[in-house]
Amino acid sequence: MNIIINDIEKVIGARGILLGEDVTSRPDSWPPMGGCQAKAIIRPANTQEVSDVLKLCHAAGQSVVTHGGLTGLVGGARASADDIVLSMERMTGLEPIDVVNRTVTVKAGVPLQKVHEAAAEVDLLFPLDLGARGSCTIGGNIATNAGGNSVIRYGMIRDQVLGVEAVLADGTIISSLNSVIKNNTGYDLKQLFIGSEGTLGVVTRAVLRLRPLPRSCNTALVAIENFEQLGRFLRDMDSALGGTLSAFEVMWNDFYRLIVGDGSKHGQPLGFNHAFYVLLESTGGHEESDRIRFEGALEEAFESELIVDAVISQSKQQRENLWSIRDDIEGLTQKLMPSIVFDISLGIQQMDDYVDEVRKQLTERWPDSRMVVFGHLGDGNIHLVITVGSHEPAEVHAVESIVYEALGRRQGVISAEHGIGVDKREFLKHSRSANEIALMKKLKHALDPKGILNPGKIFED
Amino acid sequence: MNIIINDIEKVIGARGILLGEDVTSRPDSWPPMGGCQAKAIIRPANTQEVSDVLKLCHAAGQSVVTHGGLTGLVGGARASADDIVLSMERMTGLEPIDVVNRTVTVKAGVPLQKVHEAAAEVDLLFPLDLGARGSCTIGGNIATNAGGNSVIRYGMIRDQVLGVEAVLADGTIISSLNSVIKNNTGYDLKQLFIGSEGTLGVVTRAVLRLRPLPRSCNTALVAIENFEQLGRFLRDMDSALGGTLSAFEVMWNDFYRLIVGDGSKHGQPLGFNHAFYVLLESTGGHEESDRIRFEGALEEAFESELIVDAVISQSKQQRENLWSIRDDIEGLTQKLMPSIVFDISLGIQQMDDYVDEVRKQLTERWPDSRMVVFGHLGDGNIHLVITVGSHEPAEVHAVESIVYEALGRRQGVISAEHGIGVDKREFLKHSRSANEIALMKKLKHALDPKGILNPGKIFED
Repeated sequence: MNIIINDIEKVIGARGILLGEDVTSRPDSWPPMGGCQAKAIIRPANTQEVSDVLKLCHAAGQSVVTHGGLTGLVGGARASADDIVLSMERMTGLEPIDVVNRTVTVKAGVPLQKVHEAAAEVDLLFPLDLGARGSCTIGGNIATNAGGNSVIRYGMIRDQVLGVEAVLADGTIISSLNSVIKNNTGYDLKQLFIGSEGTLGVVTRAVLRLRPLPRSCNTALVAIENFEQLGRFLRDMDSALGGTLSAFEVMWNDFYRLIVGDGSKHGQPLGFNHAFYVLLESTGGHEESDRIRFEGALEEAFESELIVDAVISQSKQQRENLWSIRDDIEGLTQKLMPSIVFDISLGIQQMDDYVDEVRKQLTERWPDSRMVVFGHLGDGNIHLVITVGSHEPAEVHAVESIVYEALGRRQGVISAEHGIGVDKREFLKHSRSANEIALMKKLKHALDPKGILNPGKIFED
Repeated sequence: MNIIINDIEKVIGARGILLGEDVTSRPDSWPPMGGCQAKAIIRPANTQEVSDVLKLCHAAGQSVVTHGGLTGLVGGARASADDIVLSMERMTGLEPIDVVNRTVTVKAGVPLQKVHEAAAEVDLLFPLDLGARGSCTIGGNIATNAGGNSVIRYGMIRDQVLGVEAVLADGTIISSLNSVIKNNTGYDLKQLFIGSEGTLGVVTRAVLRLRPLPRSCNTALVAIENFEQLGRFLRDMDSALGGTLSAFEVMWNDFYRLIVGDGSKHGQPLGFNHAFYVLLESTGGHEESDRIRFEGALEEAFESELIVDAVISQSKQQRENLWSIRDDIEGLTQKLMPSIVFDISLGIQQMDDYVDEVRKQLTERWPDSRMVVFGHLGDGNIHLVITVGSHEPAEVHAVESIVYEALGRRQGVISAEHGIGVDKREFLKHSRSANEIALMKKLKHALDPKGILNPGKIFED
């Protein structure tokens, strides 16, 4: 056994260490490209053990890749044979919810869904939500600044974390477990750890802000004929629904047609011939008045001819049916095999033109290529699913270059939610300037001078 | 003339430099303790000039204190005779508002109120609001992470800034002018400059997120008999009013009695004998349904005996009258001369006990002392106004020690909104650990190795 592993075993015990097949039988990341390559998986039981392990690694110059739920999509958790993996799987506790202050303190390894369940039991909501909720962990959500479906209402997880405890590369514990909304006592250190993909510190605990559990929910699927009206509809709904607009998900025609078309398991709530379909949702505190307002807002939109058709869900089941269309990413990628998926942001006024340009470039090079578009338009975030009939690295790279270069020309963002990891590192320059990247590296060097934390992620060292 | 000033004049011209009486005739900070002591006031016209000036200062080891509107309350802008002041007063432009994306790009020196006015013209809202709106600047708001009355609904300015352009101590321009809500392309560098009180960089421009201008506003003043009911009322209103609760301001009995009592210019909307008075406000997008919901929520609170009396404003004038009671800080401090004002946060469940302890300690030492309490309870933020009949430094310090030590024992926050500056530096240790302060210094050293930016603010160098 390696010397460093031996030393680690002395401080956290054999139970905390996995070797050999226990390592290689685990996936290396998501989607798995093979087994985990790391020399060991280290499983500390608490913050002090994380600190002890990092102290040893720092002294030995041993690189460390932190693992949460392994649901990231950019290879941010991929470990090489030189790395050790630090897994948060034994740090899954959740303190009792503070119902007066509406906060909960959790350990990094707790799955997102457990937080939802604990909050709902006391009539509270933790608003971050995403498809991987059963497996992804709060620590990973924080390290990647997770977004999801409710960002338009509640923001990214950055806006939902009041305090963070993290361990620096040298083992120093930074316990910044603030639990109030307003705290201007010097630098807001938690921001360093949110969204830095495990390169500046290992998140061990967090204080999360909880919200009232909504008492009402109104959902509609709406058809719109052109992009300009889509933008106006978003603004009008945000205004008319006050602070209660909680989802504004858009499907371009090709998405809707593919998911609801021939042989679909979904119903067909609206016809096929509209340019855009919006899944609109509003959650509030008062059944009756919320319904009046929601229906009133849609009526206004009809009268001003912004929308041409709509269905309003009349039951929980109907609501779920509408959402299942938007959420059927599996169905989508199955029909577009092999698919390449993108997660980008740009100004709403540039989206239509951007989508046109990318589609044109793809068709020129691959006449049979297909692209469907959907996303959280209310946040400026859209997803592209593209197939060019091949998954050869050179072809994928050519597609990526088309997508990201057209984006760079419009000050767009090459990763809205998913982060950079290793997969998008090459393209970071399209969204961030040389000075910005140099400042990132300066921060990295200040906090992790030996570069042991998740090396090679976000930028090359 | 000093050599460094000479060099600066060469790059930005004589118009950019104030000397002698033009410096000393300006206040040193707020409230003014004398004239500005700096050796010069430098007034760059654009970001490039800020960069040029900082390059020279960095080379010469010249300390720089950045000035916005000089409305800070903790001496964060105070300059000594060794410093030069960098004033943003010539950088006041505002680009046309992007009404589709609902953003605006502004220069650091633009007053907050100008942003309000420009947004309102196109039916949009910039939600940050505070008493100094006419003088304070966006750059200063960002540097101090300003809060104000709408934090419960929209968050601090940190949540309202999408992008920041800042100049580092060595003159490097970091143009991180992101304009979308979701951007996970590496470290979120703007966070470094928000709330760091000018010690890590000079903010030169920002992209601000705008919101729909509310179409309805409902306001009430409510009386409550005990603290436990106050906490329940906050939670119930937050839940019943969905996402539309926009203010929850609490006045303790002594505040209300002092402001509305004998010889007051205010009416007396409710009697004097209640423990707490809450100014409750909800803004939304639909007059009729918002009114139904607001009145319904208050009725529920009456029925469950959470509140004992209430007035709902029936006009804009009545609304203003209610707010003028809450906002009459001048009237308050005049009646409590000489007064010492505190801006603190702590968990809601600890507030009642905390206020009791501080009051008891004050009375023991100064039998004639008085303390009144009010604040943004919905954010965990309260203000204490205390008079012990003296403004001698030793007495003030004794009061500060009582207030902050009792807070430290409850994991409270010694500065909710106002920052640390120089005035609260000594007490920072009550809210932040030694490891946290060491990490702040590490960041400061990485970004400003010569310590030229606002030296001695937040912590001693």
